[in-house]
This record gives sequence, structure tokens and C-alpha cells, in this order.
Amino acid sequence: MHDLTPLINLLKIPSVSATHEHMNECAEKIRDLLSEAGCRTQIFPTEGHPIVYGEIKGISDRCLLFYDHYDVQPPDPLEEWDSPPFSPQIRNNRLYARGAVDNKGNIMARIEAVKSFDELPITVKFLIEGEEEIGSPHLEPFVREHASLLSSDGCIWEMGENDEMKRPTIFLGVKGLCYIELTSRGPLTDLHSAYAAIVENPAWRLIDALHTFKTKDRITIPGFHDSIRQLEKEEQEIIHTIPFDAEDTKKEIGISQFTRNMPGREAMSEILFGPTCNISGLKAGYTGEGSKTVLPSKAIAKVDFRLVPDQKPEAVVTAVKNHLSNQGFSDITVKCLGALNPARTSPNTRLVSVVQEAILSVCHTPVVTYPSMAGSGPMWLFTDILHIPTVSTAIGDTEANIHSPNESIDLSDYEEGIDIIREIINRF
Amino acid sequence: MHDLTPLINLLKIPSVSATHEHMNECAEKIRDLLSEAGCRTQIFPTEGHPIVYGEIKGISDRCLLFYDHYDVQPPDPLEEWDSPPFSPQIRNNRLYARGAVDNKGNIMARIEAVKSFDELPITVKFLIEGEEEIGSPHLEPFVREHASLLSSDGCIWEMGENDEMKRPTIFLGVKGLCYIELTSRGPLTDLHSAYAAIVENPAWRLIDALHTFKTKDRITIPGFHDSIRQLEKEEQEIIHTIPFDAEDTKKEIGISQFTRNMPGREAMSEILFGPTCNISGLKAGYTGEGSKTVLPSKAIAKVDFRLVPDQKPEAVVTAVKNHLSNQGFSDITVKCLGALNPARTSPNTRLVSVVQEAILSVCHTPVVTYPSMAGSGPMWLFTDILHIPTVSTAIGDTEANIHSPNESIDLSDYEEGIDIIREIINRF
Repeated sequence: MHDLTPLINLLKIPSVSATHEHMNECAEKIRDLLSEAGCRTQIFPTEGHPIVYGEIKGISDRCLLFYDHYDVQPPDPLEEWDSPPFSPQIRNNRLYARGAVDNKGNIMARIEAVKSFDELPITVKFLIEGEEEIGSPHLEPFVREHASLLSSDGCIWEMGENDEMKRPTIFLGVKGLCYIELTSRGPLTDLHSAYAAIVENPAWRLIDALHTFKTKDRITIPGFHDSIRQLEKEEQEIIHTIPFDAEDTKKEIGISQFTRNMPGREAMSEILFGPTCNISGLKAGYTGEGSKTVLPSKAIAKVDFRLVPDQKPEAVVTAVKNHLSNQGFSDITVKCLGALNPARTSPNTRLVSVVQEAILSVCHTPVVTYPSMAGSGPMWLFTDILHIPTVSTAIGDTEANIHSPNESIDLSDYEEGIDIIREIINRF
Repeated sequence: MHDLTPLINLLKIPSVSATHEHMNECAEKIRDLLSEAGCRTQIFPTEGHPIVYGEIKGISDRCLLFYDHYDVQPPDPLEEWDSPPFSPQIRNNRLYARGAVDNKGNIMARIEAVKSFDELPITVKFLIEGEEEIGSPHLEPFVREHASLLSSDGCIWEMGENDEMKRPTIFLGVKGLCYIELTSRGPLTDLHSAYAAIVENPAWRLIDALHTFKTKDRITIPGFHDSIRQLEKEEQEIIHTIPFDAEDTKKEIGISQFTRNMPGREAMSEILFGPTCNISGLKAGYTGEGSKTVLPSKAIAKVDFRLVPDQKPEAVVTAVKNHLSNQGFSDITVKCLGALNPARTSPNTRLVSVVQEAILSVCHTPVVTYPSMAGSGPMWLFTDILHIPTVSTAIGDTEANIHSPNESIDLSDYEEGIDIIREIINRF
């Protein structure tokens, strides 16, 4: 067992990028951890939160880049945590804390793997940013500016998990993301709700506008689907190689059926290849306990779209604005809070088989290979700008509650994760 | 000038009934103020917040009842107050605090008026409850149980104001209120928004359901309008006797037009006689700063309906439930958080002319008489159960920001309000 103290100390820092908390403190902590592992390190300031870079030379010239992030999702709703999100607690061989898996647990596993070598067989680079959970708004200029510093023969991404059947999974791509905030404005201040007799309520207006975005079956914003790439035959077939227990998934999530009551195979296809239009947040008027009669001065919706190749976030923002205008809602403002392109790496790349074999050697279980994640990340900067083949593998399981209350990591997985990274370095 | 210390001390108590804060403390303070004015007092516990009763015998047997409430609306959004809501502050001859007008300023004016008599010409009773702002859920059983204690020849209600032209206004009725909370439930916990590919979002479902409640022009819940009483000719004509500067009202509220771009007379008709369906609050998922990608486990809407004779809140709840069920939204739960019947007193009642003449003698300005308020209150308990003619007159002006940030009272109005109550007692 590796000493858990460095991980626990890292998890105590509430580095919530959305609310700009403790970000510099966490970046410095990461820098110190990389230095202790023998890396030459540097903290690069950005217009947002700093990026931490580390590099350690190996015997051969071949080079592997690890992409990670030290920021975490906001922990709310706080009342649903069994122990405080930034006071790590071990229960039943699991470590509970915000970031236990996503992504601080994985950062520490990689650092521990590097530390385990007397001399590294290859050169290893770390790029650990602080804005992944808010859409990596400042990573693109950094990557473009430091292309030669980051130059590598392969990149290990930061996501992955053991699936519900404990099979290790890897991912060769991500969906894109377009995160917007819609604001509908009414009277100058919140009014007594008796004014509803004569004053239009911005919450009703927002509801009427959002109602035009989708039906239960389909996103209805004109132009949204235009640039979606037709699936290749190989991509369609891969759906059948991926194990998926639809009933278990529903039970775990606590739902009786998937959207449109779709069967498991169709659900898997949507997870891999379906774009989404999701309400992440709604806020208007009085949201506390009990009743307050008020006509709110504004109403806000946070809407995120997951995108698939070759959709572009900028085009989605334009499509939404045009749609609102055409539907008579041009008074509703649209602010883009995050944008990421989708990305995919070919399954025939050497790095893919290296990762598959490394995991097999440690876990004695064949890897399940997904052509894409359901989630997003700035992978396209590496695949499409730096032209580095990229494979995502990480620790975590279906009980991890990523982005939810009671996030946790299985401590046996943590140990296994260290060994897997060691094997990838050995074989690459 | 009367000493403002008792009022300022009363305003310092944050008696927010919606969040159950400091209610007993405030009830005891009211009891003490009534005792100091010479009343026989009693605090009646209820299943909610206590009711304070006070009575002081006069020379004649005639009896006037004052209805007031010591609870206040929640002060949020706190950041929009120029001074803290429960730290009363005087600026430019106005006293700023939550409750400055609604209703603590008026309570103190009435107590000061009573104190100004060496001997009262009539008997005066005070009923001061603590749940008006949450729909007076426990007043009905109290009124039914203590009908003889409360027996009076007239009741002075707690609302009214000087209008935008500084004309004193009185009200002979109120709209009813039906306040419901709708909850749409999805997965067991908030999920990573990537799940939007396969899991229905309860916020979308709530939006789709709410969208069926009304169009821009009309409430579309079947049965909602069924029991609305046809307006009498006299009621329709009174619209033309009420001054209303539509442009000033719009400017003050900060809107460019009324709903449906209706003209001033139609707006006045809606204010007096139109039922409403208003969103008081919307809440789902992440509502903080910046972005968080989440598929929320539930979405909540707080909806209030203002009702007109002879609509009943119970019938509205039933209509909403039936409508949701008929539209395929029977999974969305409906909880009633407040219910009040509408009420009206005839303009030919003697109390009405007493109040009109009292105000004229103090203000030297004719009174504008409204057949109904746009707002609500439990007036029907007094008019329809106790059969007491009821007229509403109170201090306040169009800059009072009732229910909004920076609530305030003009200190000259406060003095005038004391004199008016004194004159009403003298003439009744």
C-alpha cells in the first residue's frame, strides 16, 4: 500500500474552479508533488487559473504526456454528503472526498507510478490544468504557444473507469461541449406577485423559449444537427462489442426507463454518438423554503450541449441565437460559458494497444474500448492541434459519484492504477 | 414627531414567517407594545406562529377591530439592499427596513393613535397574526373558534397607500391566493450531464408541464375560470373613477409595456378583477456562479394564483392536478403552500364613508376607493365568517418597495397615518 497522506492533503484543498476557490494554493501543491517526484516544474499563469507543467527525462527519446486537471466540480448540494466534501474520510476501503476520482486520485496515481522508477525508460511530461470543470477556457492559447514544449509521441488522458462489471475501460475520444447561460429580464426589481395581472414574468418567457429547444424525442433548434458526421460502419459495429447492462444502469441511476423508453443498444449508441441539450440549472425568484409571492426581475437557465464530430460550439451558439430571434425571443440574452470541440483517435494507433496490453497484464482482464466518452474535455487540442494520439485510462468505478455528492475512490483501484501507469511507461 | 424608537426596535426583529425566524420574540414584543398602550393582551399559540390579541374598552359599545400582521417577507436578494434589511436606517426622511411599511410601520401607527387618547370613545380590538406573508394558514380555525371575542362593528384592514399622485387610497376587498409548489423528479442524485444522452431531465419535464399552464394571453388550465363571477355594471364603471398613469407605472417598474401591450384602462381592470398565474420561483440543478454540468435529480417551481370572486383555492389545486394528469404529467407532484379566498365589502357600508371622511379631514384630499386590491389577505374570514364590514387603509407610497429590496416608509406619512387612525376612531 502506498502512503495516502499526499492524496488526502491534496483532497483537502477545495479547488473549485467555478467559484475560483483556492486555485493558486492547489497549483503550488501540485508543483511541489511533481518536484518531489523528480520533475523539472513550472507554473504558467493564464488569464484564468494557472497551468502546472512537469517533465522528467528518460533513457530513450520517446515521450509520453499525461494530461490532468487539479480543479474540481462544486460540491453542492452539500446536505447530501455523508461526510464533508473537503474533509477526506475512509469508509469500507473507499476514500470519500470531492475530487477523490475526478481528478486528484488519478493525478496522485500517476505521480506515484513515476516515483516508483529509479530511472524512467522514456521521457514523461505532465500538463495539469485548473479549468477542466469549467470548459478549459485558457488551455487552447497555452497549447498553441507551447506546442514544442508539449511535443510527445502519445498522450494519456485523465478519464476512464472500471465499468459495472469491474471491466477496465478506455476511451479514444470525447464529446464536445457548448455551455450557455440564458437570461430573461423583466421589471427592474423583484415585484409583489400581484403585478402579474399586468407585468410579463421573465420566468414564463424563459419557459416558453426553452420549450422550443427540444421535444421529448429530438433537439429542435434549426441547424443544430447540420454538421454531424455520418457514422462509419466500424463505429456502428463497435456498439455491439461494448457490454452494457441496461437494467443495472437504470437501477443505479434510479430511473424506470431511458429517455423515449429506448432499449439498451440504442442507449449505448446515444451515449457514444448522440448529441444532447441539457438543463444544468434553472433559477428565478424565490427558491428558499416555504412560500414567497414575487414576480422575479430575471430568470436564468444554464444549458449544456454535448457535441459529436464535427459539431462546433461556436456554431451551436449562433444556431441558438438565431433560433431565439426567429421564435420572437430576441430579448433573451445568450452568454457562452464554455466551449470544447469533440475529438477521436483511431483504434489502430500503437498507443491504443500499449494501453490495452498494460491493463491486461495488471488486471488480467481484457479492456473494453469505447470510441468516445459521453463526457467532454479539451482532447481536440492534443489530437487536432498537437497531432498526438490520445488514449484515456483512469481509476474509478460506477460507485464513484463523479460530479455528485459522496464522490469516492476504491483504494484497491488506486493501487492497481499506479501499476497500470507503470506498465504503460514500461511498454511505450 | 412621535418617537421612532419603538418602531425601529420592532423592525430589528427579523420575523420572517417563511423561514420561521424570531417569530415568538416578535409576538412578545407586539404584546408588550399593546400592553404599554393600555390593552388587555393575550398571546394565542397556533399550530404555526402565535396570534397576538389586544383589547381596550371605550366609552361607547361600538367596536372597531384592527387586523395586522407582525411577520415579514424574506429579505432576499440581500445584495440588492443599500442597507441591511434588519438594521433600520433613516435617509432623506425615509426609514429603510424590511417591514417598514408592510406591516410593522402600520402596526406602530395604530398603537400610537390609540395611545394618544386619554379615554377611547369606542372599544378597540387588535388581532395581529404572524403568518400573513405565508397565506395565514392558521387564522381560519382561530377566527372560527374566537368569533365572539372578535365580534366588532367594523374592521380596519392593514393595506393601502398613497398612490403615485400622493392621493390616499382605500380598498374594499382582496384577491384570493392559491400558492403551489410543483416538483418534478428524475434520477436519485444529480448526475454528470453526459447522462442527458439517455436520462430524462426533470427540469425539461417541468418546463414542458408549465408551458401548458398559460399562453401569453390566457391561463389555459381547464376549469380555472369556471366560477369567476360576472362583473356588475357598477364594478365595471368604477374602473373609470380610479386615476392611473400607465406610463408612470411602466417607468417605475422598468418595463416598456404591460402584458399583451394592454392600454391603461384594461390594465386597471386586470389589477382589480383579473386572476393571475405567476411563477414566484424556479429552481433546478446548479444555480451558482459560472458553469457546472449536471443533470439535476429534481426541479421545483413555485406558482401563485391570484383569485377573484368566487374562485376557491381548493378548486384551483384540483384543476391543476387534473390538468397535469390529463396532459401526461401525473408524475409531477403538487403541494399547496397557501390558500386564501377572495373577499369584497359593499361600497355603501357606513364604515367606508367614515374612513373616506377621516382621511379627507387629515389629508385634505379626496380618497380614491378601489373595490379590490391586486394583492391578497385573509379578509374573507372577517367579511364572510364574522360578517364584519371591512375597509383597508394604511400608510405607504409607491416608493415603498413592499416585498422588494430597500423597503421604506416616508416619515411624514407615518405621522399622518397616526392622525388618520385617530380620526377614524373619533368618527366611528
